[in-house]
Order: sequence, then C-alpha cells, then structure tokens
Amino acid sequence: MTAQRTAIYPGTFDPVTNGHIDLMQRAVQLFDRLVVAVALNPKKSPLFPQEQRVQFIVDATEGLANIEVVPFNCLLTEFAQSKNAKAIIKGLRAVSDFEFELQMGLMNRNLDEKMETLFMIPSQEYSFLSSNLVKEIAGLGGNIANLVPPGVNQRFKEIKS
Amino acid sequence: MTAQRTAIYPGTFDPVTNGHIDLMQRAVQLFDRLVVAVALNPKKSPLFPQEQRVQFIVDATEGLANIEVVPFNCLLTEFAQSKNAKAIIKGLRAVSDFEFELQMGLMNRNLDEKMETLFMIPSQEYSFLSSNLVKEIAGLGGNIANLVPPGVNQRFKEIKS
Amino acid sequence: MTAQRTAIYPGTFDPVTNGHIDLMQRAVQLFDRLVVAVALNPKKSPLFPQEQRVQFIVDATEGLANIEVVPFNCLLTEFAQSKNAKAIIKGLRAVSDFEFELQMGLMNRNLDEKMETLFMIPSQEYSFLSSNLVKEIAGLGGNIANLVPPGVNQRFKEIKS
Amino acid sequence: MTAQRTAIYPGTFDPVTNGHIDLMQRAVQLFDRLVVAVALNPKKSPLFPQEQRVQFIVDATEGLANIEVVPFNCLLTEFAQSKNAKAIIKGLRAVSDFEFELQMGLMNRNLDEKMETLFMIPSQEYSFLSSNLVKEIAGLGGNIANLVPPGVNQRFKEIKS
Amino acid sequence: MTAQRTAIYPGTFDPVTNGHIDLMQRAVQLFDRLVVAVALNPKKSPLFPQEQRVQFIVDATEGLANIEVVPFNCLLTEFAQSKNAKAIIKGLRAVSDFEFELQMGLMNRNLDEKMETLFMIPSQEYSFLSSNLVKEIAGLGGNIANLVPPGVNQRFKEIKS
Amino acid sequence: MTAQRTAIYPGTFDPVTNGHIDLMQRAVQLFDRLVVAVALNPKKSPLFPQEQRVQFIVDATEGLANIEVVPFNCLLTEFAQSKNAKAIIKGLRAVSDFEFELQMGLMNRNLDEKMETLFMIPSQEYSFLSSNLVKEIAGLGGNIANLVPPGVNQRFKEIKS
Repeated sequence: MTAQRTAIYPGTFDPVTNGHIDLMQRAVQLFDRLVVAVALNPKKSPLFPQEQRVQFIVDATEGLANIEVVPFNCLLTEFAQSKNAKAIIKGLRAVSDFEFELQMGLMNRNLDEKMETLFMIPSQEYSFLSSNLVKEIAGLGGNIANLVPPGVNQRFKEIKS
Repeated sequence: MTAQRTAIYPGTFDPVTNGHIDLMQRAVQLFDRLVVAVALNPKKSPLFPQEQRVQFIVDATEGLANIEVVPFNCLLTEFAQSKNAKAIIKGLRAVSDFEFELQMGLMNRNLDEKMETLFMIPSQEYSFLSSNLVKEIAGLGGNIANLVPPGVNQRFKEIKS
Repeated sequence: MTAQRTAIYPGTFDPVTNGHIDLMQRAVQLFDRLVVAVALNPKKSPLFPQEQRVQFIVDATEGLANIEVVPFNCLLTEFAQSKNAKAIIKGLRAVSDFEFELQMGLMNRNLDEKMETLFMIPSQEYSFLSSNLVKEIAGLGGNIANLVPPGVNQRFKEIKS
Repeated sequence: MTAQRTAIYPGTFDPVTNGHIDLMQRAVQLFDRLVVAVALNPKKSPLFPQEQRVQFIVDATEGLANIEVVPFNCLLTEFAQSKNAKAIIKGLRAVSDFEFELQMGLMNRNLDEKMETLFMIPSQEYSFLSSNLVKEIAGLGGNIANLVPPGVNQRFKEIKS
Repeated sequence: MTAQRTAIYPGTFDPVTNGHIDLMQRAVQLFDRLVVAVALNPKKSPLFPQEQRVQFIVDATEGLANIEVVPFNCLLTEFAQSKNAKAIIKGLRAVSDFEFELQMGLMNRNLDEKMETLFMIPSQEYSFLSSNLVKEIAGLGGNIANLVPPGVNQRFKEIKS
Repeated sequence: MTAQRTAIYPGTFDPVTNGHIDLMQRAVQLFDRLVVAVALNPKKSPLFPQEQRVQFIVDATEGLANIEVVPFNCLLTEFAQSKNAKAIIKGLRAVSDFEFELQMGLMNRNLDEKMETLFMIPSQEYSFLSSNLVKEIAGLGGNIANLVPPGVNQRFKEIKS
C-alpha cells in the first residue's frame, strides 16, 4: 500500500487561462489529488472577485477527477500543510518566471523545510499566455476565444456589452 | 488504493556530488520509487567509468529506501517507459540550467507526449556545485571533502597519489 | 518591380529617447516606409499626453525620409494591418526586454499569423537608456541633455521651472 | 520605384531542421531576396560536409521563390557585402541564443557599421529544436521524422544501416 | 601612505534584511569607510518612513566600525561625490537584479565617468530574501525572525498588535 | 593610517583585449595594488603560451602604476592568499557571464570564506568583445586593430604571414 499524494497548485488565476488548465491536466496525472488554491491577493487588485475566479476553474475542470478548487488567504505553506500536501506545483514559461519562482520556492522551504516546489512545463502552444495579457487584449477588443475556457470568454463578452 | 508512482532522475553523475544526493533525498519523499539513471554519455568523455559512477551513488544512498540506481544507454524516454515512470526529475540551480532543461523537457515531450519533466530546487548550500567544478578543484589540489560523498572524495585521493 | 515594404515601430515613447531615435534611423534603411506608432497606453499613466509624445518624435525625426509618426489606441495587430505593414520592429537591450517582447511577439502571431516581429539591436551607447530612467533622473535634477532629443530636454526644463 | 532588399540567413545547418525551414519561409515574405549562407565552420567539426548541408536546404526549399542557398568561408560581413545585403537574419529561441547573437550582432556592426542584425521568432512548435539535439536523438535511435526535412531524415537512416 | 577608500551602499531598505546586513559586513572589510545611503524613494511608497529605515540599520550595525548610515534624496552620483566615494556597492542575487543594476551602473557612469559600480555576492543563505518578500510574509502572519534584524522583527510585531 | 588594499584580476587572457585593459584601468583606481593573474589553463588549449600572454599585458599596461602581472597555476584562492589579496575582480558583460562567475564566486567563498568577488562593468564600447571572438575574426582575416592592444595585433599579423 502506498500513501495518498497531494499537490497544491496555487495562483491568483485572474482569470484562469488555457495554459493553467493544461497544467492542471498534466499535474493530476502525477498525483493522487490536486488542490488548486486561488489566492485572494488584494495587492494585485484582481479584476474578478475570488469567488468568481474559483468558479471559472470549477467549470473548466468539470471532467477532471481528483481535483479540488478552493480559495485561500493565508501563508501558502500553512495552507498546504492544512491540505496535507507535500508539494507545490508551478508552471515555468520563461526565465523571468523561473527566477521569481525560485525565490518563492526557497522562501517557502525556509518557512517549512519539508515543502518542495515542483516546476512543470506548460504546453508550448500556451507559452506566451498570461492572465494579464488576456485582460489587455480583451480590453482592446481582441479575440481571446482560443486563450481561455468558454466561461471566461463569455464573461468578458458580458462585461463589454 | 492508489497506483505506485515512479520517477526517474537521470544524469551523467561524473561524479555524484552532495547536491545530487540532496536532490535524491528530496525526491524519494514525493514518489513511491525513485530510479536514478546513470547515462553512459561517451560524448562528454567522463572521468569515471559508468559502472564506477553507479557504485558511487549506490554507496552514498545506502540508507535511503525506495531508490534504485541503474546504468542506461538509450533514449531517456524509452528508458523511463521501461521503468513505468511518468516523470523525469531534474535539479535547477541557475537560469542556464533552466533553458537547457526546458529544451530537453520539450524534446522529451515530443518523443513521448505523456512524459512530464519536474524541476526541483536543490539545497541552497549546494547551488554553486557541479561535477565539472569538483573535478577542476580536485585537479588543482583543492579540498572537496564537503562537496562530495566520502567514497568519491576517497577515490580522488587515490587518483592523486 | 518589388512591393513597398512597411514596418511598424510601436511604443509608448514617454518620452522618446536618443535610443529610440537611433533605432528609427536604422530601421528606415531596411524598409521603404517606417510607421512609428505611439500608443495611448493609459495603464502606464504616461507623464506626457499622447499628442505631445507624437510631436516630440515628429520634431526629432525631421530630416528622415519615409517615416510617419501616428497615435493609436487599438490592438497593435489591427493597427499594423490598417497600415499594410507585415513587420513589427522592436529594440532589444537586455534579456528582460527579450522575454517580454518574445511573449508579445508570440501573442501577436496568435492574433495574426502573418505578422512577424523583428528585433533590432540599439546602439551600444544607448543600451542603458529607458524612458523611465530619463524621467527619474530629470526628476532628481540630473542632466539628460545627451539622452534625449533637444525638444524633450527643453520640455523637462520648462516643467521644472 | 523601390530598391531590391536582400537579407542573409547564416548558419552551420548541420543539418538543417524544420525550425530553420520555418524561419526561411517567414523571412522570404519580408525581403525581396533571401540568401541562406552555409558556413564551413571546421571548428565545430560538422557531421555533414558543407556541400551536403547546402544540398539538404536546396531540396527542402524547392517550392520557395526568391531564395538562394550558398556555401561561404569568410567573414560574414564581407560575405553579406558581396551579396549586397543590408541585414543579417537570426532566429531567437531562448535567452542563451539572445546573448550570443547580441554579441555577434555588435561585433558585426563593429566590422561594418551599416550591417543590421534582425532577430526573428521561430514557430513555437520548434522552439526546443536544434541541430545538435537532432543528431543526439538520431544517434540513440530516436524518431526525428517530424523534426527535419524528409531528405535529412532519409540520410540519417542510411547512415545507421 | 595610501588614500582613504570610501564606498557607498545605496538602497531603499524598506526594511533592511539580514541579507543587507551580511553585505555590509563583507563590504566594510574591503574599504576604509562604508556609507550606507538610505533613499527617500517616494515612488515606491515605502512602508516605513526614511528616518525609521535609517534607525533600523544604525541599530543592526552597532558593532561594525567604519560604517556610516545616512538618508539621501538626490542623484546618487552627486551624493557619492559629496561623500568622496569612488565606488557604489550593490548586491547581486539573481539575473533580474543583474540586468537592472547593470543599467543603473551604466547610467551612473554616464552621469559621472569616474564612478564605478561594484557588485558583491550576498551570502547564499539569504539569496531568496528581499524586503518585499519580508513585508508580504509578515503581512500574512508568517515568522520573519530569521530574516531580519531583531529591531525590525519587533517593529512588525508592534504593527500587528 | 590605512592598510594596503590588494585585488586580484584573474583570467586566461588568450589574448588580452581592449576590454580587459579597460577593466584594469578602472580597477587600479579602486585599490592600492592590482595583481593581474594569468592562468595556465591547459584545458582551454590556449593559442598563446602563458609567458606570451603575460608579456602582452605587461606591454599594454606600461603606463599604469600599482599593477603587477604574474602567471599562476594553482587554486585561485591559494594564489590570492599568497598575494595577500582580499578581493577577486571580474568583469561582467552579460547574463551568461554572471551565472558562471556567480558559481565560481560562491565556490571560491566555499574554499576561503574571507575571499570576496567583486564584479565590475566593462566599458560599453567593449561589451561585445571576447578573446575567442578576436581569435575567430583574426583567423578569418578580419581587422582587429581596434579590439586589442597594438602588440597583440602585431603578433596576429606575424602569425598570418
């Protein structure tokens, strides 16, 4: 018998993109349970309220087993401990991602020496994608249908009209 | 019941350093079995024969459960499949590591679309350490006792005398 | 007979620097027409109004043939299409520029698969220069006369007094 | 009337990959003539002779108009001048590419102040691809059919058997 | 007889961390006098007033000889000249630090061609540490006792209660 | 009274370039004595013998006071100790330099915890310059007169004829 393996995938997800969803689909293959943790993150002044950001992900991952989407507003390491997770998952698109995430990973290890950060490679097809870029393009009237889940695209259309 | 999770940690390990051992200790906590795969890698003209490189790791990981150290000389993705592994583990020390490993990870995904690469953060205390640097310092008579397992240090002393 | 080749050089230009002007001088040699496109960019809270930013460039490029300076406030790819341009020009000073511009270039290709981004190397003598740094130094009373066109320098002097 | 615009795309191309071909297809859209310049480059000990490397590209670009494939073995800036080219084209996949190519671009500008280097973004689908990686994978028996033109793939098969 | 060597170590220090203190301890070994220059920096909206930021450093460096902690609010090169310093000291943790600091160093050389910037390596144990991260963790109730001097830790506790 | 401050500037210098000379001129302003340490470095298969590489630098720095040029072939930290130096000087041109030099600096601190590495910024005008590039261009018949000291340029001319 083997222990249940839980991993945490944290982020602001404002809003979730197809790149995030791709990573979730990859990560659930490697662990027994994946907890997607949606940060409140008031300092970033998110466009969508936390509740809405959670719901976007719940809708977009409907068919995926072993996934749990939850809001949080505390230290990530404490939240991970409360979920009995031993690993934090992060996607790495670029060098600038890497340096920031390395810093965060070392800080999280400083706060909890047993907490490992695992970096995964998103699909190449989404390597240029970020939530900020999606918002910028949508704000200028560009088409984001192939960049975000249908529910997110729909919401942007409602905002505009 | 959950499936057994196997990960592969590949490298030339010429020779294994304390940084590699640290990563192995972290990785065995996250998976049910860790296969350390020692590449033949004739193009790099290794200082130590493959067999010796395997033995160094076997000796240095004696106390670790769920670890298997094996030589290989084929495509990494094929080797990983033969071990029923779904994930390749790599340590990331620096940006230059990251770019090379990202390239390899994408190529491995091209060869086997189900094979994920997971990057882990080595202990900060070994972030400057590499097999090449160890060989260079030992070659100039420097002390490497705190950089490699005892068996490797001993072997360098025998070479010199 | 060959077709007319138009390239777009977009930016906020708040304000234009000698580094930007150097790049314009290089780019007009390579294309039949260069359209300098000055973005409204309200999110960056520019110091100078868009109209003023356009005028600074018009004044500084007076002697250059085949150059057109225009304001815009829409998706860059749509603007480029309206100008019949097939290439977007960007200057690359540093790795951080590169990663951001690579992301933008891939996004623009996603929005218009025929739109190429061409990165050019600014003169070494201006490799440290940015609009933000110019504003910071001028704000602290530093001399920017060798960093910006005369009209921009003059305007900063008027602001101060 | 406008002048004819010629650009040079230099490299060792040992062998040409689908990533190189993709870049050629993009570059011929932007210039009136593209000269693919295949360097002798004895220091890199190429696997294929220069003549063969030229032929691979000639075969793979058969349908492309306005392209010329030629060997060279001199200073790139002198070769470009002899072809009346004002621009050197290079593909940028990663930060490490960028730094090396920036250095080369500045050196080439030092040797000929009118010679501009233009960096282009290869297709994302080939961002992990390099001639060295192709040779390594083919050497280990991996499938490279989707990474190189048919002629190159065929030649690797002949070598192996 | 040799001249007195003065170096400047500038920053916002909002607040000073153990990483900054480690760098000060290293720098005072190399120069006859080290001037720690605390910038007003209103654009960054510091959490602590300039006076308080100076005091934190004064308290934390009590045992160090040849160190002077002073506020400043002008061009760094002018401030350095007023202190008769020929070198600016900066710590480099990561590539992103490096690019920004390289830009600043070149700009400062542009403003004063005799002013050299010297980059030093902070202790590995603090390579992930930044003032912003400290504020973020303290804001979420995390323990920062091993990341900042005692006086800073005490002040954060007072803020919270 | 203040102590004499000695710094070491190590390298292979195969051959010395104007970029190296520029850095020496800057470094001697900051320390009482600068020891230029020319490594034997057989692994790099230098083009010029160590003795010749030393002589090139001696000739090019004739007018500079407080500089000493010496060959060495041992651990750098041991050599620095023998010269009573507390600091190693390195030039940083690019991110790739930075990562390699950071690794070396941390390793040297591991071998001697009192040994600091100081990174300096070379003149922008030489930021693209390296000994390898000089050899490559000279080998292809290019003009290197503005890249190296006169003695080095002369020697390349003799080799060619």
